[in-house]
Amino acid sequence: MLRTHNCGQLNISNLGQSVTLCGWVQKSRDLGGTTFIDVRDRYGLTQLVLNTDTEATLRDKSRSLGREFVIRVSGTVLERTSKNPKMATGDIEIAVTDIDILNESKIPPFLIEDETDGGEELRAKYRYLDLRRNPIRNNLVLRHKMAQEVRRYLSDLDFIEVETPVLIKSTPEGARDFVVPSRMNPGEFYALPQSPQTFKQLLMVSGFDRYFQIVKCFRDEDLRADRQPEFTQIDCEMSFIEQEDILNIFEGMTRHLFNHVKGIQLDDFPRMDYADAMRLYGSDKPDLRFGMEFVEMNGLVKGKNFGVFDNAELVLGINAKGCAEYTRKQLDELTEWLKRPQIGATGLIYCRYQPDGTLKSSVDKFYGEDDLTNWAAAFNAEPGDLILMLAGGTDKVRKQMNELRLEMGSRLGLRDKNKFAPLWVVDFPLLEWDEETSRYHAMHHPFTSPKPEDIDLLDSNPGAVRANAYDLVINGTEIGGGSIRIHDRKLQSLMFKHLGFSPEEAQKQFGFLMDAFEFGAPPHGGIAFGFDRLASIFAGLDSIRDVIAFPKNNSGRDVMIDSPSTIAEAQMAELKIRTVN
Amino acid sequence: MLRTHNCGQLNISNLGQSVTLCGWVQKSRDLGGTTFIDVRDRYGLTQLVLNTDTEATLRDKSRSLGREFVIRVSGTVLERTSKNPKMATGDIEIAVTDIDILNESKIPPFLIEDETDGGEELRAKYRYLDLRRNPIRNNLVLRHKMAQEVRRYLSDLDFIEVETPVLIKSTPEGARDFVVPSRMNPGEFYALPQSPQTFKQLLMVSGFDRYFQIVKCFRDEDLRADRQPEFTQIDCEMSFIEQEDILNIFEGMTRHLFNHVKGIQLDDFPRMDYADAMRLYGSDKPDLRFGMEFVEMNGLVKGKNFGVFDNAELVLGINAKGCAEYTRKQLDELTEWLKRPQIGATGLIYCRYQPDGTLKSSVDKFYGEDDLTNWAAAFNAEPGDLILMLAGGTDKVRKQMNELRLEMGSRLGLRDKNKFAPLWVVDFPLLEWDEETSRYHAMHHPFTSPKPEDIDLLDSNPGAVRANAYDLVINGTEIGGGSIRIHDRKLQSLMFKHLGFSPEEAQKQFGFLMDAFEFGAPPHGGIAFGFDRLASIFAGLDSIRDVIAFPKNNSGRDVMIDSPSTIAEAQMAELKIRTVN
Repeated sequence: MLRTHNCGQLNISNLGQSVTLCGWVQKSRDLGGTTFIDVRDRYGLTQLVLNTDTEATLRDKSRSLGREFVIRVSGTVLERTSKNPKMATGDIEIAVTDIDILNESKIPPFLIEDETDGGEELRAKYRYLDLRRNPIRNNLVLRHKMAQEVRRYLSDLDFIEVETPVLIKSTPEGARDFVVPSRMNPGEFYALPQSPQTFKQLLMVSGFDRYFQIVKCFRDEDLRADRQPEFTQIDCEMSFIEQEDILNIFEGMTRHLFNHVKGIQLDDFPRMDYADAMRLYGSDKPDLRFGMEFVEMNGLVKGKNFGVFDNAELVLGINAKGCAEYTRKQLDELTEWLKRPQIGATGLIYCRYQPDGTLKSSVDKFYGEDDLTNWAAAFNAEPGDLILMLAGGTDKVRKQMNELRLEMGSRLGLRDKNKFAPLWVVDFPLLEWDEETSRYHAMHHPFTSPKPEDIDLLDSNPGAVRANAYDLVINGTEIGGGSIRIHDRKLQSLMFKHLGFSPEEAQKQFGFLMDAFEFGAPPHGGIAFGFDRLASIFAGLDSIRDVIAFPKNNSGRDVMIDSPSTIAEAQMAELKIRTVN
Repeated sequence: MLRTHNCGQLNISNLGQSVTLCGWVQKSRDLGGTTFIDVRDRYGLTQLVLNTDTEATLRDKSRSLGREFVIRVSGTVLERTSKNPKMATGDIEIAVTDIDILNESKIPPFLIEDETDGGEELRAKYRYLDLRRNPIRNNLVLRHKMAQEVRRYLSDLDFIEVETPVLIKSTPEGARDFVVPSRMNPGEFYALPQSPQTFKQLLMVSGFDRYFQIVKCFRDEDLRADRQPEFTQIDCEMSFIEQEDILNIFEGMTRHLFNHVKGIQLDDFPRMDYADAMRLYGSDKPDLRFGMEFVEMNGLVKGKNFGVFDNAELVLGINAKGCAEYTRKQLDELTEWLKRPQIGATGLIYCRYQPDGTLKSSVDKFYGEDDLTNWAAAFNAEPGDLILMLAGGTDKVRKQMNELRLEMGSRLGLRDKNKFAPLWVVDFPLLEWDEETSRYHAMHHPFTSPKPEDIDLLDSNPGAVRANAYDLVINGTEIGGGSIRIHDRKLQSLMFKHLGFSPEEAQKQFGFLMDAFEFGAPPHGGIAFGFDRLASIFAGLDSIRDVIAFPKNNSGRDVMIDSPSTIAEAQMAELKIRTVN
């Protein structure tokens, strides 16, 4: 080794020892005759001290050091006169006897410090420098610990990690596949997996009983802030179980992670029907760090000649506690915010429960004091509260109110990143109607089992069929989702029929799975966690980008390596493909 | 859970308990009034016993069971009258009170037993059934354990597992890339990584210090028996180290695996120069389970008017101990075997040390008793031994003799799969001359550091430059390879120049790495292990295929899912590509 210790290791117990450290020059201060240099590595920071009056060679070398130079220094561990209790090595410094410059550095394009002056694009181009900064590197260390704990927890429960293939078959269901032309089979393509779904089910057919894998998956979708073309799943499957078993085991895994990685003990996770989640929060992933449940107000507001409410399918309200003092201007701004096309509300009705105990609404023309008192009661409102109301079609108004609730939660400081509110959402619909294609799509995926008691509804009322499907939500973010799967060929065929597959198409795409079901497929189910997202929640980040070492930008580009890029004509000729405009 | 226990769990301590098991019907025997059924899962086999005289419902159900039916049975644990000490559950059986058929099975296309009657193709098509067989499943359980132990060993040494991207940039160096057309960047392609080489080096530049990853890699090569288009590497890199540190840490990892997964304590691994490996074994991956080193015989054979030897650049011999009794016919067959185009020898010369102490060669016309006595001495031969000789150009004759040595080792039973002979081969040449392209190629890869003392040879005698590169060989198979890397931009540019890159090409392809070297790159090096191959050696297999859950065949096809396959025109249109004939 080029060093005897790392830069985070030395303390008072090492006094007097001769040591050699390697690392990067963080900063250097020259205080008339004495030079202090902070040398940094992954493990920490150590202060070097040089007497530059007496040692001409050391002085010259130390003066030639710039930020981010890589050095190797030898010296003796001394006790500091002024200690720094914030640093692990803050009690000591190294009296340097020798310095080697292992590599020089140009001036970095941005500060390699916890708070940097580099813009997003510049940091992306020099990602290898951004990764030197503690906050980013710590995210990846955290991610590593999480992966270790996931593997430990699952292995202790007899789960086996099995690698499934990356070069698989393209299927038309779901998001767009990335495809890979096959040179050995000209005209044919592999696809990169959107998930190892069919393979993990086949492993259950094979009797593997308990499978998991931390695995890269791929979706060629238009990218939003929190999406990446390649992402990582904690993918799991079990046989001979029921939904309850999966919820217990993976609630256990999540609690294990919080406990062993963050030192947080979580209570039992609450559970909520999909229907209730939509009714109370307008979302299948409600943020339960705060209440502010929806109140359905149809019974309280209809028939008073206020057209907006009378004509609405649903009138919804929330209680923004302590916001009665909102000015007219603030309320106007909130209304404008709600009218933006992303949300599309037509207007906002409010009712102030004023500190003096009186009630005042924006629709006093139509509703008297008794009405307002009834409203306040429905919300358990108190003086100082502000009731915000939206009206419209059920689905739309729920979505809009969900946005408003989250916004008010944020404004009220109720969405603390250090608070964690997990929730199981269960009893998802099996199918959802897609206006664009005028057909039902699988809400989860085509392999999800309908609830046995709802199978009869498949023909008569497909939208009402509930699935044995569940999502794990933390702080309003979907962290994991899964289902009990179909393990019967006939039922699987029926599902494909309802999803608009002809028997031939179903057989061509998924014949291998349906065939497998005929050779003794066990009852099975599973779950997949979005590992990037889970890590970002653990790290307290809004985006998954900084829990990924080398992420891509919103155009799917890696600006550091400049990829994707053109390839040689000869390469395309070998693959028997060409590009077209 | 649908069961109270698994099929490998119950023993004498469970007597009298009411239990429920789930699993597959392995076999069923009807012995007049009593039916015995073996039910199987991943964990083992349990014997069920039914009194079919008294229980008509159970009798009918048990008669309807076929092989591989999935059942759920309840009953009471009884002590067996005739115990089976070979089975973990051999002391007990279950007196069945209830049977549920969870799923039926068609008759499987081959026997789901340790020895099967299914051919390779059939088993590949029904891989999910082949995976039910104990030997195959056990391979994957072994692989899982190995991966766990690798992660444990490395994490305990402060290595961090970091995921590097799968969608990267195509580079012309090395094997063919698989490419992925980018829909968002029409006309451009990602490539799948042949290894995460440049990314792990960038992580060192980022100060990650110790990195590892168990990661899928991809090579679009023509497939041989032991190659797969996607394969798994244990990929590792360290900073501030020297070659010796890497060898120690990863010898430690290998010993840890043998110890914790196979219970085998290995001695310190021997080390051998590349030059010695070629001289003594004609291979950079000698199988050291047996000796049979080459003896260079030029000094013993030249100048006796035997043209084959006189005209040869090199005459090599090995001592096949105890083979003096080989008949003329056997020797002729061996000669024919050597003359096959794959080996291409022109002839085989031999010398028998006969049991009576006399020496007899196939070239007695040219060499007298004194000569033969000198030969025998050079080989430490004893009565009963057989000296086999080949002559020709140095490189060719070494390769041929390597084949002959391995063949004789196999014939003599010296290549026992339960014996493990590891070896570090060190001091590889930096470059190798490629006749086809008439230029030097990097023997390891372009990022490998030349030995500092050899750098001056780069211009004058590039082929003589040695690298700080090393391979780990076990039983004649390369298991891992690595090198100390270049961390200096100038030296890296020089390397690209010697590999025939123009400065522009080098900058276009690897500019990001060379740029990174200018911002304080630490000295670093690493190694990558072929995980599939390591697992296959642990499993005692000749091929890597059965340590991979879903392997591809020699045409790169997954015959189970029928991939690769054609994709829709619309999909190609979106990607702005088309296929050509």
